[in-house]
Amino acid sequence: MALSASRFASALRIAGRRYPALNVGAACRSEFRYEQARGFASSPRWQIRTKEMNEDLLKDLKVNQGRLMEDIHYTCQWGTGERWGDAPSETGMSRLALSDADKAARDWFVSTTEALGCKVTVDAMGNIFAVRPGLRNDKPPTFVGSHLDTQPTGGRYDGILGVTAGVEMLRVLADNWTETEYPVGVVNWTNEEGARFPKSMISSGVWAGDIPVETAHSLREVHPGTATMADELKRIGYLGATPASYESLPMAAHFELHIEQGPLLEMSNKKIGVVTGVQAYKWFTINVKGRDTHTGTTDLKSRADALLTASKMILHSHRLATANNALASTGILNLKPGSTNTVPGSVTFSLDIRSPSDATVAKMKELILQDFPKIASGEDVLDSNLGCTASLPLKVEIIEDFNSPATKFRADCITSVRQSAHHILGPNSHNLIMEMTSGAGHDSVYASKRCPTSMIFVPCREGVSHNPREFCKEEDCALGTQVLLQSVVRFDRMRDERRVSWKQEPYTL
Amino acid sequence: MALSASRFASALRIAGRRYPALNVGAACRSEFRYEQARGFASSPRWQIRTKEMNEDLLKDLKVNQGRLMEDIHYTCQWGTGERWGDAPSETGMSRLALSDADKAARDWFVSTTEALGCKVTVDAMGNIFAVRPGLRNDKPPTFVGSHLDTQPTGGRYDGILGVTAGVEMLRVLADNWTETEYPVGVVNWTNEEGARFPKSMISSGVWAGDIPVETAHSLREVHPGTATMADELKRIGYLGATPASYESLPMAAHFELHIEQGPLLEMSNKKIGVVTGVQAYKWFTINVKGRDTHTGTTDLKSRADALLTASKMILHSHRLATANNALASTGILNLKPGSTNTVPGSVTFSLDIRSPSDATVAKMKELILQDFPKIASGEDVLDSNLGCTASLPLKVEIIEDFNSPATKFRADCITSVRQSAHHILGPNSHNLIMEMTSGAGHDSVYASKRCPTSMIFVPCREGVSHNPREFCKEEDCALGTQVLLQSVVRFDRMRDERRVSWKQEPYTL
Repeated sequence: MALSASRFASALRIAGRRYPALNVGAACRSEFRYEQARGFASSPRWQIRTKEMNEDLLKDLKVNQGRLMEDIHYTCQWGTGERWGDAPSETGMSRLALSDADKAARDWFVSTTEALGCKVTVDAMGNIFAVRPGLRNDKPPTFVGSHLDTQPTGGRYDGILGVTAGVEMLRVLADNWTETEYPVGVVNWTNEEGARFPKSMISSGVWAGDIPVETAHSLREVHPGTATMADELKRIGYLGATPASYESLPMAAHFELHIEQGPLLEMSNKKIGVVTGVQAYKWFTINVKGRDTHTGTTDLKSRADALLTASKMILHSHRLATANNALASTGILNLKPGSTNTVPGSVTFSLDIRSPSDATVAKMKELILQDFPKIASGEDVLDSNLGCTASLPLKVEIIEDFNSPATKFRADCITSVRQSAHHILGPNSHNLIMEMTSGAGHDSVYASKRCPTSMIFVPCREGVSHNPREFCKEEDCALGTQVLLQSVVRFDRMRDERRVSWKQEPYTL
Repeated sequence: MALSASRFASALRIAGRRYPALNVGAACRSEFRYEQARGFASSPRWQIRTKEMNEDLLKDLKVNQGRLMEDIHYTCQWGTGERWGDAPSETGMSRLALSDADKAARDWFVSTTEALGCKVTVDAMGNIFAVRPGLRNDKPPTFVGSHLDTQPTGGRYDGILGVTAGVEMLRVLADNWTETEYPVGVVNWTNEEGARFPKSMISSGVWAGDIPVETAHSLREVHPGTATMADELKRIGYLGATPASYESLPMAAHFELHIEQGPLLEMSNKKIGVVTGVQAYKWFTINVKGRDTHTGTTDLKSRADALLTASKMILHSHRLATANNALASTGILNLKPGSTNTVPGSVTFSLDIRSPSDATVAKMKELILQDFPKIASGEDVLDSNLGCTASLPLKVEIIEDFNSPATKFRADCITSVRQSAHHILGPNSHNLIMEMTSGAGHDSVYASKRCPTSMIFVPCREGVSHNPREFCKEEDCALGTQVLLQSVVRFDRMRDERRVSWKQEPYTL
């Protein structure tokens, strides 16, 4: 029978084990060291080591669906967003990174994981690492990670499911008196969304050594606020003294459960996505410069209409994506001066290009650099001028803002996920599992640069995400958590067969 | 020799004529009546009646270019906008209707025209009518009109030239001791631009009986302000008690000098546009509804991309305009939610359709009502889907916001302008004059519903308007003013040959 967290904590005390109640201040110590001593002083018969589990015993590690959903919805009291339905949980989320609401969710995460026997460390980016000791604590933990921050008009699952699933993993391990070979942990990464501080996955990026901590600390929140990340980390008490680095806080592996945020699983009636990598993407800002003129007094041939030209470019980028089996999307478009009777002289728009293949993204970039200036100058590119009036030439400036090469996850992590999914879904599993590439970026992209990584996707309704109506069925949340838990256990069991050094070397794909 | 305004005022006093110095409060009397008595008590030899002028004498009524430019630039101290050059006058204008800057310009207009012997009346829309008495004051005045308000990023000529040219007309008539048969006046219309209170030409629209005064009074300024027109009229002291109506304040005619705001005169090396009418136009708001989805996780066929669809519509409207010899323009486009990695589910854009022919505008509307829903639903319309991926259907809503049928100005006013232009430009005039249709709306559109009307256009640099760099050469400002002045005088001379009743009947084109 499953024990509640408090009963488990009592049991721990009865068993005479020492679990220092860390407060956040204490967690910010300059050095992070797992206890070298074995976490569980003794292994009574009613405790079980992951290595002793056969496939049947693995089945007994059962996620508690009700409890998981309670954690999700309980924590959504902090940063509740727009209501879209009548039920109590039918509201979206608006929990911007390092806001008061985010602090409240973080405090819950710290106190809950501590009560479950974890040691909590906060690093200089406010990333929170909660670690449950294993039998051998001289090696880095296997982590489950995601984020508690949301988009301003986000939902209850993106990120939140991944962190609460990690907490549920800790609960299930505790319920079942399971001892892992090595420590296991849950990490809450700061500002994954990049919604408040405009660089997504910035804190896992600092941890991975890709982004200097000074750059991240001085990043300012989006208009109209003016606070930096360092200001806000300090204000809410989550500016840890431990360096944000894979060297200070190494990981044996990083597993992440996430809603798909796309329609593929739902449309094909699959239950679990085994994520083998993350597609490459580049972000561009396109500035089109024409001339403001009066809509009524300027004949078509005397115009330099920046919006008409931008429309041709947006359509052209879609045609290029179709021809090259890539994705091209414009999510932001601003024009000036913005009056019904003035032809806009200036348009700025975003362009997001993606493909699982770096070569395809590079080719798309090349085509855009080649074609957009032609379209601006009035040349016909793939019938872009069909039926149009030739007008005055315009100028275009193309700025590459962000580049994320294709990520390939590690075979051993992918295997853990695949085996777990087949094991849990049973005889019909081959019809219910899809091997897939993540379209979106996640903290797992940066994690994968420094440790073996994989992800698990579950379907979300109509593929909708970054929207208050984002929705994942309770049974799918639980099923994904079950696969996550088992993947961690499987990985823990196989760790002796592979070498993971305590001082993790920079991880090369 | 020309007399200065103050010397002229002294001369008037010496001549024993009574010119009550009206203050604005007094100008707001409930009833507006021209003095029934003859304005000039006697006509000494050195005064001249317009009827006595032959073509040679007409030439002597010379506009003072330096003085005109001084008025323009002097009044541009109120509401100075963005600087674009080094010279003192190389700044744009930002004089929003009923702002403190607009009040200052209005106060200048009132005191200047009063000093020139005018009687000033302010109506319930803050329109300011300055009237110089004629020999017979039992008939309504011939007016020159335009506006002193500007776009937020406007220039120094749109509207301002028309009003200051009217003031210069008063100065020239005074300088030359000219007595008109009937009164002549200058009117400054309120909020022509519709930039602050979002309905252009609203106050001439109220005067013409097309817009209820209550609607206009309760119109709120654009976001983020909240004041109504009535609030602001009251605040700056220009809420007159005289009803804003062609019945209270009838006009014998309305002449307006304006920069072309388009490139046609400049491109063809013409000096004067004889404006025979204003083209028809309709304004629409188009709402495209798709679905917000993640740019990275949603394949092209699973999207309902409102911006891609809007881009196709904008391009299609341009193709329809090309095919039908009309104009189609989108000056405003807003999308939601506005994030680089979210496919926009919602786009709203403006569509401005124009043609000199009502039938063409009606046909364009019909084509848009027919084609936009097809484009939204995914149908191919004139190769709109060429090279595209078929995606999910979207919805479109098309709202007609504004309809302005084609305006044809009156032959007698047009004749006055044409004869004046030829007379002033001399032997080569046929190469320097263009008969044209106004592309933009002007207060003359509403004026023409209630009195004979015409307009005079002068070239502006590169056709640029609604822009700080809007520019009209000094000699062109003066030339246009010269044509305006002579048109008014010619119209005044011919008034006996046509019937203009004091109680003007609704004017039918």
